Amino acid sequence: MITQKLEPLFKLENYQRQPRFQNGFYQQDILSVNQFGKENLDYIFERADEMKAMAHQWGTCDLLKDYTLACVFYEPSTRTSSSFISAMARLGGKVIPITEGIQYSSVSKGESLIDSILTLEQYCDVIVLRHSEIGSSATAAKYAKVPIINAGDGAGEHPTQALLDLYTIQSELGHIDGLKVAMVGDLRYGRTVHSLTRLLSQYDVSLRFVSPETLRLPMDLMNDLIDKGIKVRETNKVSDVIENADVLYVTRIQKERFTDLAQYEEVKNYFEITPEVMAQAKEKMIVMHPLPRVGEIHYKVDRDPRAAYFRQVQNGLYIRMALLAAVLGQA
Amino acid sequence: MITQKLEPLFKLENYQRQPRFQNGFYQQDILSVNQFGKENLDYIFERADEMKAMAHQWGTCDLLKDYTLACVFYEPSTRTSSSFISAMARLGGKVIPITEGIQYSSVSKGESLIDSILTLEQYCDVIVLRHSEIGSSATAAKYAKVPIINAGDGAGEHPTQALLDLYTIQSELGHIDGLKVAMVGDLRYGRTVHSLTRLLSQYDVSLRFVSPETLRLPMDLMNDLIDKGIKVRETNKVSDVIENADVLYVTRIQKERFTDLAQYEEVKNYFEITPEVMAQAKEKMIVMHPLPRVGEIHYKVDRDPRAAYFRQVQNGLYIRMALLAAVLGQA
Amino acid sequence: MITQKLEPLFKLENYQRQPRFQNGFYQQDILSVNQFGKENLDYIFERADEMKAMAHQWGTCDLLKDYTLACVFYEPSTRTSSSFISAMARLGGKVIPITEGIQYSSVSKGESLIDSILTLEQYCDVIVLRHSEIGSSATAAKYAKVPIINAGDGAGEHPTQALLDLYTIQSELGHIDGLKVAMVGDLRYGRTVHSLTRLLSQYDVSLRFVSPETLRLPMDLMNDLIDKGIKVRETNKVSDVIENADVLYVTRIQKERFTDLAQYEEVKNYFEITPEVMAQAKEKMIVMHPLPRVGEIHYKVDRDPRAAYFRQVQNGLYIRMALLAAVLGQA
Repeated sequence: MITQKLEPLFKLENYQRQPRFQNGFYQQDILSVNQFGKENLDYIFERADEMKAMAHQWGTCDLLKDYTLACVFYEPSTRTSSSFISAMARLGGKVIPITEGIQYSSVSKGESLIDSILTLEQYCDVIVLRHSEIGSSATAAKYAKVPIINAGDGAGEHPTQALLDLYTIQSELGHIDGLKVAMVGDLRYGRTVHSLTRLLSQYDVSLRFVSPETLRLPMDLMNDLIDKGIKVRETNKVSDVIENADVLYVTRIQKERFTDLAQYEEVKNYFEITPEVMAQAKEKMIVMHPLPRVGEIHYKVDRDPRAAYFRQVQNGLYIRMALLAAVLGQA
Repeated sequence: MITQKLEPLFKLENYQRQPRFQNGFYQQDILSVNQFGKENLDYIFERADEMKAMAHQWGTCDLLKDYTLACVFYEPSTRTSSSFISAMARLGGKVIPITEGIQYSSVSKGESLIDSILTLEQYCDVIVLRHSEIGSSATAAKYAKVPIINAGDGAGEHPTQALLDLYTIQSELGHIDGLKVAMVGDLRYGRTVHSLTRLLSQYDVSLRFVSPETLRLPMDLMNDLIDKGIKVRETNKVSDVIENADVLYVTRIQKERFTDLAQYEEVKNYFEITPEVMAQAKEKMIVMHPLPRVGEIHYKVDRDPRAAYFRQVQNGLYIRMALLAAVLGQA
Repeated sequence: MITQKLEPLFKLENYQRQPRFQNGFYQQDILSVNQFGKENLDYIFERADEMKAMAHQWGTCDLLKDYTLACVFYEPSTRTSSSFISAMARLGGKVIPITEGIQYSSVSKGESLIDSILTLEQYCDVIVLRHSEIGSSATAAKYAKVPIINAGDGAGEHPTQALLDLYTIQSELGHIDGLKVAMVGDLRYGRTVHSLTRLLSQYDVSLRFVSPETLRLPMDLMNDLIDKGIKVRETNKVSDVIENADVLYVTRIQKERFTDLAQYEEVKNYFEITPEVMAQAKEKMIVMHPLPRVGEIHYKVDRDPRAAYFRQVQNGLYIRMALLAAVLGQA
C-alpha cells in the first residue's frame, strides 16, 4: 500500500522506558491501608522524604516524564485531585484531568464503570479513581491492566489520606512507637479515623477516642484494637486527653448526623479546639485534621506552631508523589 | 520610556520552530472524512504506526514540545477529550483543557462560537472542537487562523473516529482490500457507521448491513455505494453475516428511536453479540464498537481475542497523535 | 526503623531553584492596578515584549519549568483561565487547573475561602484567583504564603486585564503620552474602564467618555482625573469623538442595567461601531474591546486593520507570562 518510505519520526533504538526499582509496589493497585505493613510504610515514607527534599530544592523533576496519569473523579474533590495532579506534574509526568465531566458524559450514555476504566486505561499508565460507591476501586482494579490508586470509594477507604496522616505523625514527631494519639470528633462515620487507626494499630501506641456518645468508634474496630493489645480509652471530653496527647487528630462532626439540632450545637462547641484548649496541651505535640474544617479548630489556633494540618496537606503531596513513582517502578 | 536595559530572558537566535514535513496536512483543518483519499490515509496510518511504536517503547516524546493545543468541548465527551489530551501530552505538547466550562462562561455572556474561537486561537497553535451543531467546525475553520480538528459536530461528522476505525481494521487484519465488513445496529442515525462506510468505499470491500427495518442505512449513502460498485447486502439478522465476516462493526441501538418499547426489547436481544454468536464466526476476524456499549456486546466476549474494541480505543490515541503532529508540520 | 539504605532518587546537590531577578515583583501579590507606577509598567511591558518574541519564534520555553501554578476559579471564565493556563504552559510551568469544580467540592462542605487557599497553596508556587466577592484576592493574599494574582474579584478589580489593555495601546501605537483615548459604553459599571482609566491617568493623555446619561463614569473617578489635571470630556455620541480618537475602547452595555427596554434598544444602536463609523476615524488608530462583545462592534469591522481586539487578547497572554515569571523571580 505505502510505496514511499517516509523519513522516520523517532530513533527508537536509543531508549526503552523500564522500571528502575523492584519495590513490591511496581504495577500494584493501591486500594486499602490493609496492604501496608510496616516495611511498606517505611519504604513509602522514605521515598516521601526524598520527594519533599526534591520539591523544596528543585520544585519539579523528570522522574515520571515517560508516564501519563488519568485522574478520574466521578465526584469532585478539589483537594484530592489537585494533590494528585500536582504530584504527577512535579515529577514531570503527564496528566489527563477528568475531574468534572465524566458523570455528564460517558455515564449519562449508560456506560458502566468497568467499561469507562477499560477505555481510559488505554490512554494512560496509571489511574487515580474517586467514586462514590464502596468497592468501586477494587472492581476497577480487577479489570484494569494499569495500576489503580483508590482516591476514595464512598464509605470505603481513602488509603492515601491515611498514609499521609501517618507520615505526618512520623515527620513531625520523629517516630510513632510510644505515642499517645487522641482521635476527636465523629469516630463512627469518619473514614479517615478508621483507616489511620488501622495503620496505627501496627505500632506500639496508646489510642484515646473522644466523641459524642452517638458517634463512638464502631465496635468491630474497637475489638480489633483490643485483640491486638493496643491501649485504648474512650471519653467524650477533649479535656480528658489534651494534657497527655502527642497527637490530637480532629475530625468534622456533620450536622446531618443529628436529629436533634440543639444536641448538635451543644456537642459542636464541646469539641472545638481553641487557644484555651491548646494552652493545656504539651509543648511538643501536634494538632491534625483531614480538612475541610467547619469550626472544629478555631482559626486562632492556626498560628500555633503545633497546628500541623496545613503541613499535613503538603505531606499528602509527597506521599502521592512517592506512591505514583513506586507503582510505576521509578521509586 | 525604559531607561535601563534589562538582562534579556532568552537567546532567541538559537532556535526557530518550523515545520519539518511538507505532508499536505500542514496547517490544514481536519473536518470531514471526505478529505481523506487513500494516499492521505496511508500517510496518517504509517505515522500512527510510528506513534504506537514510540508510545510502547518510550511512553512519551518531545515532538510537539513547542506547541499548544486548546481542547474546546462545548458538550462533554470524556472519551474523546481524554484521547486528544493524552495524544498531545505524549507528544510533549501543552494542553489547554476547556472540556467543561465554556458553556457556563463566555457562552452565557452571549458570545458567538466564532468570537470564542477567534479568542481562544490567540492562546494556541491548534484547536480540537466539539460542538453540538452540525457545521460548527467548518464555521470555526473558516474564521480561525490555526487548524481546527473536528471532534464531533452533532449529527455531522467525527472524522477522527472514522480514521481510527479504519486504522484498526488495517492494523488488526493487515489489509483492507478483500475484506467482508458487517455493520450492525443503528445504521440510520449512527454517525460513525456512515463515516466509516464512506472511507471503506474507497477500497475493494464487501459490505453487509445488519439492522432493524426502521434503522436501515440511509438511501443516499446506499446509492453512493452501489454507484461505486461496492458489493452491498442488507439483512436484519446477525446470523446471516457472522460466518463470513472479517469485521463485525457493532453500534448501539438507542431506546429513544423506538416508539414501541416492546419492539425495542425484541430488537435489542436480536442484535446482541454473545459468546454463542462468536462461536460461529471465523477464527481470524474482529469485533469492533465505537463505544460506549449498552448491552450490544456481552461482557463475556471481552475475553475473546477477536474482541478488538478496547484496542480500537488505543488506536484512537495513535491516530490523534499522528494528526496533531501532521497539522503542525511535525509528522 | 528503616534498616536498608535505598538507592537515592535524586542528586540534589546539583541544583537549587532560585530567583534570577530582583525585580520588585518577586513573591509579591498582584491585586490592583494601584500597585503599578510607570516604572513597574515599563518593566512588565518590556518583559511582555520578550515573551511575545519568544512565543513567536519558539512557541514555548523552560523558564518556569521548576514552578507550579494553581488556577483557582470560583466562577468560570474560560477566556481568563485559558490565558493564564496557556501563559504558564508556554513558560514550561506546571498547571493545576481548578476552573470548575471548587464550588461543588470544598465549598459545598462549608470550607472558607481562606482554608481553601491555605490548602491549595501547599501544592503550588503561585495562585491565580477568580472569585465573585470584592476583596477576595486581598483576603487570600493576606493569609497565603505564595503570591496571589487577582484574576477578577467581582465588582472589584481585574488588574491583568487593565495591564494588557495599556500594553496593547503602547504596542500598537508605540507610545501612550499624547494620545486621545475614547472610552465607549457602560462607563458606570465597567470594571475594565475604571482600571484602565486609573492606569492612563499616570500619562499625559486626553480622555473622552462616551456613554448613555445613566451610565456615566462615577463621580469620584472623574474628580480624581480632574485633580490630576487630565483633560477629560463627556458625551453621549460616538460621532463626537471618532474623528480625533487614537484609541476607541468599547465596552458592552448590559441589558440588565435598563428598566426601560425600549431605552436599551435605542442606546444600543447608538453606540454600535460599524464600518461606516470607522470610515470617519483616523487612519492610525485602534479599536479595542475587553470582550466578549454582543453587538457593540459589527463583525464587518473585524477585517479592518485598526480592529485590535483580538491582538489585545493575545497581548493578555504575554502580559500574564511576564507577570507569572516576575512574581516567581524568573523575569
